[in-house]
This record gives sequence, C-alpha cells and structure tokens, in this order.
Amino acid sequence: MFPAERWFKIQENEGGSGYIMRKIRLMAPGPTPVPEKVLLRMADTIIHHRTPQFQAVMKDVNIKLKKVFMTENPVITMSSSGTGAMETSVVNFLSAGDKAIVINSGKFGERFRDICKAYGIDCVTYDVESGKAADPAVVADLIKKNPDVKAVYGTLCETSTGVVSDIKAIGSLVAGTGAIFIVDAVSGLSADEFLPDKWGVDAVVSGSQKGLMLPPGLGFISISQKARKLMETSTLPKYYFSLKAALKSYEKDDTAWTPAVSLIMGLDLVLDLLLDEGMDNVLARHAKLAYVTREAVKAVGLELFAEKPSNAVTSVKVPQGVDGKALVKTMRDKEGITIAGGQSELAGKIFRIAHLGYMDQYDTIATIAAVEMVLAQQGYGIVPGKGVAKAQELLK
Amino acid sequence: MFPAERWFKIQENEGGSGYIMRKIRLMAPGPTPVPEKVLLRMADTIIHHRTPQFQAVMKDVNIKLKKVFMTENPVITMSSSGTGAMETSVVNFLSAGDKAIVINSGKFGERFRDICKAYGIDCVTYDVESGKAADPAVVADLIKKNPDVKAVYGTLCETSTGVVSDIKAIGSLVAGTGAIFIVDAVSGLSADEFLPDKWGVDAVVSGSQKGLMLPPGLGFISISQKARKLMETSTLPKYYFSLKAALKSYEKDDTAWTPAVSLIMGLDLVLDLLLDEGMDNVLARHAKLAYVTREAVKAVGLELFAEKPSNAVTSVKVPQGVDGKALVKTMRDKEGITIAGGQSELAGKIFRIAHLGYMDQYDTIATIAAVEMVLAQQGYGIVPGKGVAKAQELLK
Repeated sequence: MFPAERWFKIQENEGGSGYIMRKIRLMAPGPTPVPEKVLLRMADTIIHHRTPQFQAVMKDVNIKLKKVFMTENPVITMSSSGTGAMETSVVNFLSAGDKAIVINSGKFGERFRDICKAYGIDCVTYDVESGKAADPAVVADLIKKNPDVKAVYGTLCETSTGVVSDIKAIGSLVAGTGAIFIVDAVSGLSADEFLPDKWGVDAVVSGSQKGLMLPPGLGFISISQKARKLMETSTLPKYYFSLKAALKSYEKDDTAWTPAVSLIMGLDLVLDLLLDEGMDNVLARHAKLAYVTREAVKAVGLELFAEKPSNAVTSVKVPQGVDGKALVKTMRDKEGITIAGGQSELAGKIFRIAHLGYMDQYDTIATIAAVEMVLAQQGYGIVPGKGVAKAQELLK
Repeated sequence: MFPAERWFKIQENEGGSGYIMRKIRLMAPGPTPVPEKVLLRMADTIIHHRTPQFQAVMKDVNIKLKKVFMTENPVITMSSSGTGAMETSVVNFLSAGDKAIVINSGKFGERFRDICKAYGIDCVTYDVESGKAADPAVVADLIKKNPDVKAVYGTLCETSTGVVSDIKAIGSLVAGTGAIFIVDAVSGLSADEFLPDKWGVDAVVSGSQKGLMLPPGLGFISISQKARKLMETSTLPKYYFSLKAALKSYEKDDTAWTPAVSLIMGLDLVLDLLLDEGMDNVLARHAKLAYVTREAVKAVGLELFAEKPSNAVTSVKVPQGVDGKALVKTMRDKEGITIAGGQSELAGKIFRIAHLGYMDQYDTIATIAAVEMVLAQQGYGIVPGKGVAKAQELLK
C-alpha cells in the first residue's frame, strides 16, 4: 500500500540522520486534490442505485451539473474516464463516412482525431502548431471548403500545451451551419471562461478528476437540441456509450448502467462546494492562481510555452541546461509535488503546473518555491526567492 | 445528502414517539457492502496515475487479480461498469457479420445478445427458460449446427434469476472448436466455483461491486491466448474499449486511459483481503450462506426459483397473496435492508437475497429475520422464527 506521505533519507550535510517527511501534493492537471470532506463522503455506506434514495441524489446532481456546466442542456454522468465521454461524442452523432473537422492543438485534439478515425469518420484535421491557439479564420475557411461537415471537434484547454482556444469565436462560426460543435472541456471546465449555450457549443465533454475535484472515474457529456437531432440519424454502433439509453434513464433520474455510486456521492458534494463558492468566484480563483504562476515563473527568468495560456494549467519552457524530465521527477520523488512534464514530442521540453480544482494560493506558492529550489539544484543559476516574492506581491 | 442511517417514525402502538434508527444493509446482488477499511483506503490522498508509485500498485493488483480470477491470463482493469467489460468482449474479438452463440438465461444473457446485435453480429441465441439452467446438450447441438461460430457467450451466475450455469460442461464443448468462450462472471466471481483456465474459458468478464467488495466503477476482462489470436482479425470499431491499447499499457503496469485511481487503491486492498481469507474459504463462505438461506426460506414455506441455485444470490418465489414489490420496498424503506426484486417479467414474482462479497452469517440471519417479519406483516400467515431457527441450526 502506498502512503499519503513520503519519507526521504536525510543527507548527512542536511544536519541530521534518518528520514524526513514530505506530503503528497498534486499540482498536475489531473488528477487534482480531492477535499477531505469529499473523500470522507465517498467513504460513507454504499447505497443501491436502483432505489428512490439514489434517484433523489441523481436528481440533485443533474440540476447542479447544469449550473456548473453553465448550460440548460442535460448533462449525462457516465462511468468512464473523459476519453469515454469523448468517444460518446463521436459514436452518437455520426455515421461511418461522415465528415468532421477536428481542431488538433495537441495530445487531446489528437485523441478526437484518433477516435473519429477508429470509427471511419472522414476527418478534416486542422493541425495547430504546438503551443499556439487555433486560428478561427482557418476554421472558418475549413467550414467553407467542407459544407458537408457534420461535426466540429475543439478543445477548451488543451491540457498537453496549456493553450486555451477561442471557443466563442469558433462556436459562432459553427452555429450558422448544419454541423454541431463538440468541445473537450475536460481540463478547462470551471477554470477557463466558458459559456457553452451562448457560444454555440452543442456538446461539452468533461471528466471528474480536474476542476470537479473528484478522483478519476466519471465522464460527462451535455447534449443540445441540435445534437439530439443528429443522434437520430447516427448509425455508428454503440451500446455502453449510447446516449439514447442514457437520456431515457436521465429523464427518470436514473442511469442506464450501474453507476459509480461512491463517486456520484462525492459529485453531489463537490457540486455543492463549487456552487457555494459561486462559479464566478471559482473562475476568478483559477484566473488569479494562473496569473500569479505566470508572473512568478517569468520573475525567475523562465518563458511561458502557451501563446494563449489557459487558467487550468501553466506550461513553462524548460530552460537551457536543465534536464526537464529530471526536474519533474525530482519535484515528485524528492519534494512530493506532482507537476506534469511534456507529453510525446514535448517530453523534457516543458513542465506544467496546474491551478485546477481544490487548489489555493498557498499550494501555488509552495509549488513555485519548490520549482525554484529544484531548478537551482539542477544548475539553473538562480538564488531561489524571486518567484515566490513575485507571487506574494501579486497576492497581497 | 443521503445518510447512512435511516430514521423512521415510530408508530404509537410501538410504545414510543419520535424516530427509530435502521442501519442500511445491502443484501442485493450488487452493489454489495464495502469493508470500512476499504472505504477509508479509498479516502486516502489521491496520487497521480502516470507515476512509478501508481505503477507499483498496478503491478501488485495485476498479480493478485490473476489469483482471485484463478487464471494465468492477464486480467485488464477498466474504468467502466461490468456492461463496459461485456462490450469489450464483443468489439475486440469479432467483426460485423461474424456468428456468435449467446446463451441467454435472463437479463444479463440478453445484454450479451443486445450488444452483439448493436455491433451487427449474427446472433444464434439459445433462450433458456427463466429460472432454468442452460442445457449443455442444446449448446452442443448449436455448436454442431453452426461450425462457423466465432464466439460463445455464457453467464456463470445469471443475477436476474439466481441460476448458476454448468460452465465446465459448456467450456469443454467450446474448447474443441475454433470458437472462444466468453463468460459473464460479474456476480458469480468468488461466489460460485469457477476455474476458467481448466474449463476452457477464454475471457472472463466481471465488475467491482459484487464479490470484489468495492463500489461500482471498475470492469474486468481476462484474455486467453486463443482470444488474443481472434483480436488480430477483429474489425469492429473501438477506442476506449480497445484491448490492444489496454494490453500494451498492461505490459508496463500502466493503463491506456486515466484509471479510477481511488477505486484501484481499494482494489489493491480487497484483493489482499480475499487472498488472506483464501479463495477456497471465500467460496466456502458463499456456499454456506447460500445453503443456509435456501434452507431457511424453505423452512418458512417458500419456494426457490432457480433450478440450479447460484451461491451468489438466492431467488425466492413470492408466495400467493403477498405483494412482491411491496415486500422489497418495505424491506428497504422500513427495515433498511436492500434485497432485490425481480426484473422485467419477473417483477413482483421473485425476490433475491445475495450472499455476495462482504457478508457473513449474521447479515444472513438478520435478513432472514426481516423477511419473515415483513412477510407476516404483509399477510403471509406465519409466526416469524422458523427461518431464523433453521439458519441457527445449520450454522451452529
């Protein structure tokens, strides 16, 4: 069994012998820390899901999900990761041979493309340069050239690069067409401004282990009326991910398949916590922590990677002479703080600090402090302190 | 929020005023009670899944899963319900137009058939009479008449009827053919005798919320070498449920998609609990509790529904003059004990008491006592006591 604290051998020159404790701090863009009261809520006696008692919980959850997702559309809770919800947004709306535009800004844009390809969708992929945001003009052009497009797939926050997309602009382009607009808001939800109904988003896809402050295991998808119409013509095969089955149960505050009961009990509580804080305050908190982090890393002389940085996660270029993989490893295995490295071709080139979910300014300060200290250990010529001081200045 | 205890208004003739507490007792065939230490294990600090720390847990889990599933084949852990694992066993082995035999003994046999149909499989369905066990001779005949069959789908314990199938006999029939044998052991695993490797089972499908004593949210599937061969030719579309992706990650003690971390931490512990008890003892405990329940309900004058009763769940015919739906509702809403009613055409006709997972003899006695008391209240002419006395006699 893995302990929640880590014990590290003290070096002799550290003025002691034996071991010293470091707490585990999750500062990666998912999974994010879960509030203790939520962990304990999920540890309560399990109840059966085919009961009026559970349906009362689902009814509450369904109402609160709409508020947190800022949509009037139904939001379906699924027992799967966010990838399952992404697949749901393909298999329910499209048929083999249908054309779809995929805006690919990184690892998770790629995933939409790969799912579409797995299902025989004719994919028009807009490969955005890594670290850059999708240009709505290019999307407009693709829509013009492909009037038969059935769906456009975009990403609110591309977790792999920390870039936020201009969903509002892209949504206004898609809204005037017969196509639906599906947005991966797995990491962006509750961190970046996002008004799906006003912005012409037909399906929002998300997951539990990011801004929703839960462990992984739940996926979500909202469905607009326009998307529901497309459901009627879709012939791609599906069963577990069938939205027809999901919506039929949803109407009765039920679930099509056995739901992840304990996670849903936690969901019931985190939705209260988010709504009690107020979605505007939640967004403002993420914006503040992200801003402070950006300024702090700049004060240390580091460069941001994202052209348009998301408030969910800040991606930072690994400076010359520093081993980016060792930085992330040392942060995690020596300091107890899990940040994320770069994925695929970005491995070793960037590191990513999240501001997502149950995080406050002292989590952010602790992380900046540790990054400074580990960078200094790794030969980046700084005296730690400037980053933290900048954060303190901005947070005072 | 839903409390773990229920408070019921005391009637005046009960000699008091105010409210009296009933604990929640899960005695339905899933979700089953989760041991407190497991609930607390899952409430520990969440760790990131793309770390050597998590991989060390997965490595242990993967080794222990083989022991609990009693197989040498890899057992994949999925973030989905058991239905997702069932779908996995269709989309990875078959192609559209392939022929499959589905042994349909009830609600969950039907589900295999429905999944196959959703994916364009040419389904040869053996509809077994409700409450009866599949006849291996009929299966032998179907195999003979359909030599081009690629897969045979069966169910160890058909949860909806409480019938256990003769998987050993059916397995020996399939083993000699080119077809693979897939068994839904969602509720049967660890309750009914089951030796998949010896019995020629190529894929075992299961879920977390039954004998594994966890909340719902994890699905499982084991894969034999024969099944792996079939994977290579399967052309059905898949992404989230791709076993190719799952196995690639499995080899590195990793998961293809973000796993349900907290449930997996609980899994790590329940597997220890099961292996510490010893699988033989676990099976013997289920056998004993099921036997005691069968004898106790017979002592009350009730009839069993299943021709060949499973040790996971005992299904009992609702006696003449008793409202079966009211019985289950009163048990749950007044006594706090969740048993299951009949599903679909069996609604109101049977009730089902589980012996599954974290249940012991006093849970069984309490349930029998409550069933007797509620039956008496509902006009079934008995003085409560005979059932409990029979249980005590057999347990002494």
